[in-house]
Amino acid sequence: MRIYLVSTNPNKAREISSILPTGFTVEPLTVLGESGAVEENGDTYLQNAVKKLEGFLHLRLPLIADDSGLEVQFLDGKPGVHSARFLGDTSFEEKMRGILSRMCGVSNRTARFVCVAAFTDCEGDYLAVEGIVRGTISNEIRGEQGFGYDPIFIPEGANKTFAELGPEFKSKLSHRARAFRRLFSLLSLYSEHRS
Amino acid sequence: MRIYLVSTNPNKAREISSILPTGFTVEPLTVLGESGAVEENGDTYLQNAVKKLEGFLHLRLPLIADDSGLEVQFLDGKPGVHSARFLGDTSFEEKMRGILSRMCGVSNRTARFVCVAAFTDCEGDYLAVEGIVRGTISNEIRGEQGFGYDPIFIPEGANKTFAELGPEFKSKLSHRARAFRRLFSLLSLYSEHRS
Repeated sequence: MRIYLVSTNPNKAREISSILPTGFTVEPLTVLGESGAVEENGDTYLQNAVKKLEGFLHLRLPLIADDSGLEVQFLDGKPGVHSARFLGDTSFEEKMRGILSRMCGVSNRTARFVCVAAFTDCEGDYLAVEGIVRGTISNEIRGEQGFGYDPIFIPEGANKTFAELGPEFKSKLSHRARAFRRLFSLLSLYSEHRS
Repeated sequence: MRIYLVSTNPNKAREISSILPTGFTVEPLTVLGESGAVEENGDTYLQNAVKKLEGFLHLRLPLIADDSGLEVQFLDGKPGVHSARFLGDTSFEEKMRGILSRMCGVSNRTARFVCVAAFTDCEGDYLAVEGIVRGTISNEIRGEQGFGYDPIFIPEGANKTFAELGPEFKSKLSHRARAFRRLFSLLSLYSEHRS
């Protein structure tokens, strides 16, 4: 089953491709330019993921999309669903510095990454699943790999950030990997049922 | 599997119960009072159905919800996703009269009812499906059964309105029946996979 990913982020396509089960291929939706990004103005990850799919139903192609965020307990779950727009139109470097400065000297560093991955066949069927990874916020920005908030997030059981641990670790244990792995597991079942 | 329906409309619960496959029971969510209705301010049926589910995730119960609308071709698909609020805070009698007066003498009476039915296990998994029934708008309000716009909708192949045809017909062929029948078919598969 060839599925198209609604995202302008090449890192996402790479992460998802690394966990694909046999029988599936994922390609970025090439009609998406820089201007093709869907406004992420939903109240929840699921609403945003659904909006991304709904923007391209007219293509009549099997589509996947996701939305994700970092939820910091001390910041009442922020930046959360607004992760990409936290502190406005700034770089992730600045957003991460913003979080670290707000948490200077704070001992409760509990956080989690949440991802909702969604699929539609563009014929009226939808599947969506949530993936979560728990962890803590580091004291400083560390590591060069990954993207977004990866350099300040230390997953449970590790002592390095996602950006230090790199893609192999993330393809096993990240929120996105967990969400898409479950999504593809449901999709396998779903496509058997349809064929 | 016992599933709870997020709706304050007793007609919906009755319609859905009439098409339940064995192994499933559906109960209205009793915590919903008149004030429990979720604001249907999404841009699509799916967004509204998702919002209804998301309002009650804290209950940690298997939930279903739906959103539906009547789409009249001559009215550019209106009332559509705004079916319940078409012409503001008026009765369905008034809403139907509003549609009929706008279509007085119009020969293109093509219309369709659309329903999106959605499920969540409240643990992060979501399924949603769309059901459609095509038909035409009658010249006058006819029939006493059903609810909403049923008295002005004549399904394809029939010469009576949904409100004249009654619940047995609707449980076979309505947009809601089609959506929920497919949803329960996916759910059967899903629950086998989980158990």
